[in-house]
Amino acid sequence: MGKKLTKRSEDYSKWYNELVVMADLAENSAVRGCMVIKPYGYAIWEKMQSQLDKMFKSTGHQNAYFPLFVPKSLFEAEEKNAEGFAKECAVVTHYRLKTDPDNNSKLVVDPQARLEEELVVRPTSEAIIWNTYKNWIQSYRDLPILINQWANVVRWEMRTRLFLRTAEFLWQEGHTAHAEKDEAIKETILINDLYADFAEKFMAMPVIKGIKSESERFAGAEETYCIEALMQDGKALQAGTSHFLGQNFSKAFDVKFATRSGELEHVWASSWGVSSRLMGALIMTHGDDNGLVLPPNLAPIQVVIIPIYKGNKELKTISKVAHKIYSQLIAAGISVKYDDRDNFKPGFKFNDYELKGVPIRIAIGPRDLENNVVELARRDTLEKKSIPMKEITNHIKIILEDIQNNLFDRANSFREERITAVETFDEFKSILSSKGGFISAHWDGTSETEQSIKKETKATIRCIPFSKNIKAGYCVYSGKPSPQRVLFAKAY
Amino acid sequence: MGKKLTKRSEDYSKWYNELVVMADLAENSAVRGCMVIKPYGYAIWEKMQSQLDKMFKSTGHQNAYFPLFVPKSLFEAEEKNAEGFAKECAVVTHYRLKTDPDNNSKLVVDPQARLEEELVVRPTSEAIIWNTYKNWIQSYRDLPILINQWANVVRWEMRTRLFLRTAEFLWQEGHTAHAEKDEAIKETILINDLYADFAEKFMAMPVIKGIKSESERFAGAEETYCIEALMQDGKALQAGTSHFLGQNFSKAFDVKFATRSGELEHVWASSWGVSSRLMGALIMTHGDDNGLVLPPNLAPIQVVIIPIYKGNKELKTISKVAHKIYSQLIAAGISVKYDDRDNFKPGFKFNDYELKGVPIRIAIGPRDLENNVVELARRDTLEKKSIPMKEITNHIKIILEDIQNNLFDRANSFREERITAVETFDEFKSILSSKGGFISAHWDGTSETEQSIKKETKATIRCIPFSKNIKAGYCVYSGKPSPQRVLFAKAY
Repeated sequence: MGKKLTKRSEDYSKWYNELVVMADLAENSAVRGCMVIKPYGYAIWEKMQSQLDKMFKSTGHQNAYFPLFVPKSLFEAEEKNAEGFAKECAVVTHYRLKTDPDNNSKLVVDPQARLEEELVVRPTSEAIIWNTYKNWIQSYRDLPILINQWANVVRWEMRTRLFLRTAEFLWQEGHTAHAEKDEAIKETILINDLYADFAEKFMAMPVIKGIKSESERFAGAEETYCIEALMQDGKALQAGTSHFLGQNFSKAFDVKFATRSGELEHVWASSWGVSSRLMGALIMTHGDDNGLVLPPNLAPIQVVIIPIYKGNKELKTISKVAHKIYSQLIAAGISVKYDDRDNFKPGFKFNDYELKGVPIRIAIGPRDLENNVVELARRDTLEKKSIPMKEITNHIKIILEDIQNNLFDRANSFREERITAVETFDEFKSILSSKGGFISAHWDGTSETEQSIKKETKATIRCIPFSKNIKAGYCVYSGKPSPQRVLFAKAY
Repeated sequence: MGKKLTKRSEDYSKWYNELVVMADLAENSAVRGCMVIKPYGYAIWEKMQSQLDKMFKSTGHQNAYFPLFVPKSLFEAEEKNAEGFAKECAVVTHYRLKTDPDNNSKLVVDPQARLEEELVVRPTSEAIIWNTYKNWIQSYRDLPILINQWANVVRWEMRTRLFLRTAEFLWQEGHTAHAEKDEAIKETILINDLYADFAEKFMAMPVIKGIKSESERFAGAEETYCIEALMQDGKALQAGTSHFLGQNFSKAFDVKFATRSGELEHVWASSWGVSSRLMGALIMTHGDDNGLVLPPNLAPIQVVIIPIYKGNKELKTISKVAHKIYSQLIAAGISVKYDDRDNFKPGFKFNDYELKGVPIRIAIGPRDLENNVVELARRDTLEKKSIPMKEITNHIKIILEDIQNNLFDRANSFREERITAVETFDEFKSILSSKGGFISAHWDGTSETEQSIKKETKATIRCIPFSKNIKAGYCVYSGKPSPQRVLFAKAY
């Protein structure tokens, strides 16, 4: 490797930035704020996509594709949405370049090719999609529409970080249309639950479900449902949002349908999305000082086999066994890589696959062959043990499942320990600066209090969690009545 | 339905435009030249993607993602490439909108937020990718790089048509880097062959492999390999291209590697792509006057089951059998839809699935139940026959395969009949205006002759085909010596 990864305890943020690059996940590009997602990082994203896509389809959604550009006049139609995104819009104003008259080898924007109407590069697609739905919806028979799109979007961010906040990012955005208000709300919740399932079962990342306060709500939504995760440095990360849009977009784009009884009514809507930001969440939930730690359900390589040998003859003998194990594992549906490259030493390979978070490493040396065993190392615990060659497939199946569960349990304990109920604002500030994590506190429900707390502490309301035993109390800041505790945290 | 599809013989172009919309494949959007790909059209595109992706991966390629934007200074680095695309570039010049001071509910581009350097929305990604590869490649050990990207690209076209020519389209673009010239050429050919396999085995669309003449070559390439298909109106369609880029981009971006012996050399490159244009090719290869005709390998619904009934009791009895057939077919890996919607008549459904090109339709009525049969209709031949219920899964498997083969054979005969060898330019013009199709003619190899022929006939050289028995002759236009026949056609 050469360069060693910074320890998390030294500088968490530096650890993250280094890890993303050293594990070959992504890197900065020549375009300010835009990233290159490298093959290994993209392979993890593909696993996420494929699983989410399956979940969307099995709940009745279909994929479609809408234009990258939004004409300014459509973009500004839903005022709150437009206001929310106006400050970070990349705008196309021209459709042609021409040779620079002062320098033949350069190009300049052709002033003759100015667009009559500017085009916004989509920061989100409600506007272009609702303008399309207008033509698709006449009657209740045309509803519901349950559509998802996998796409790139652009939000011009000033401070960017790989995966977490980039000017261009990859995401999916669902946009649904319904005849009934209740049905739209049900859909919004269905998807928020789906996101939580995905986060917990595939990313092994525990999340808290809840709704956003008004000031954290999506611009143009009536209600924003969300899943919130906790990173290892005690900061929260919003991992997915699902918005009940009410009739805001159907009114802005005049989308009405004829009910069964023939009346014309505005359509009800939801929209929802998760993005390549989840890659950042995955890294900061499980990574350690040796690098990335991947849950087996999302690992492009679940098992790597590395031969330990001197000379070609030993390699040949080991390879024969390795290929046999390889085939057995592949047949069992496990993704395996056999790394017999001869220009890298085993130690280098060990480090590299640790850095890349491969869940299980199998090493095979001449003595292992004699004893009919292999050395198996788990990435999550870094434990090594000898495994009889005979039982290897079963063993690996069990260990992969165990790693998946262990990662979730570990992250869950970490998170549970970092939800602290406080009664006073002093306590609030003291916990925030010492322990971090989620602070469960009473809040009077006003944006003023929320803003004051944010100003004094940098903590925001991550969500108003769904809870079985809601108890009223008094706001930690204003002392006014509060219907239930909410979760505050500093956030990504 | 209401509206009836125009006949191909009446107006082929109108037939195409109507079919795309009526079969729910795509439609025009509010953004000039950009399309909305509707769920049914997108489901076909997903089938194409998934198959191609499998083929790329099984030949050692990995996916990655590069930025949507290309800074102007990078875009202009490879001069020929820049010149080729400059006239159709969408350009981002600003990164913010603000409230219109003259009208509070409108937005205007904020003149304060002008980018220091304009960003081109990628028309193709060689520039941004080679600027990235520069940092990835130091030694021969870093080569080859075999990367593919699934992405949207923008080329500002003045005359657009759904799928065939749109300002934004979806595609994949492969970009590979090699230590040896021969290896890069081999890669270029490997992919052109892979495209041909995909076109013939999955799209059931026969193609001719060859190379482009200089004037039809990709801007920035040394050689462009291509596959060319023939549409039902006798016009050719370029279905995929694979470019040997030589060292053009490695020189423009100064990408060198240390060879085994330690010398510094420029890297060799290929790039290749197919796009959502293939959807247009699919439609115009197999469609008929009743609508789309899909090859089973790409059909989102391979079999549709429609109940023919009066009253709820009959429907219940039929549904029981239909669900049984449905489960059997699903278990056999066949994609089936059971359409028991009660607000549409069977006749309407028959037309609709014909329009959508579903390969097999099964109708079940009360009399069929008595006789233990179903009525099966093939979309390709429109033949109907009774099938014993017992043997249904096997029958359907065989018929799906037969449809796949029949579609290819039919398109292949059509194409074979429309490759005409001509000896004189009069013959050339007469065949072109009467029969159309590919004209196999001798050509003197000069761009001048090519341009003159194009000017007089609108036909261009589609490709210089690979042929086992190449024979020399004399140019049909200039009478000068010609090393081999090439294929001319009017083209999409």
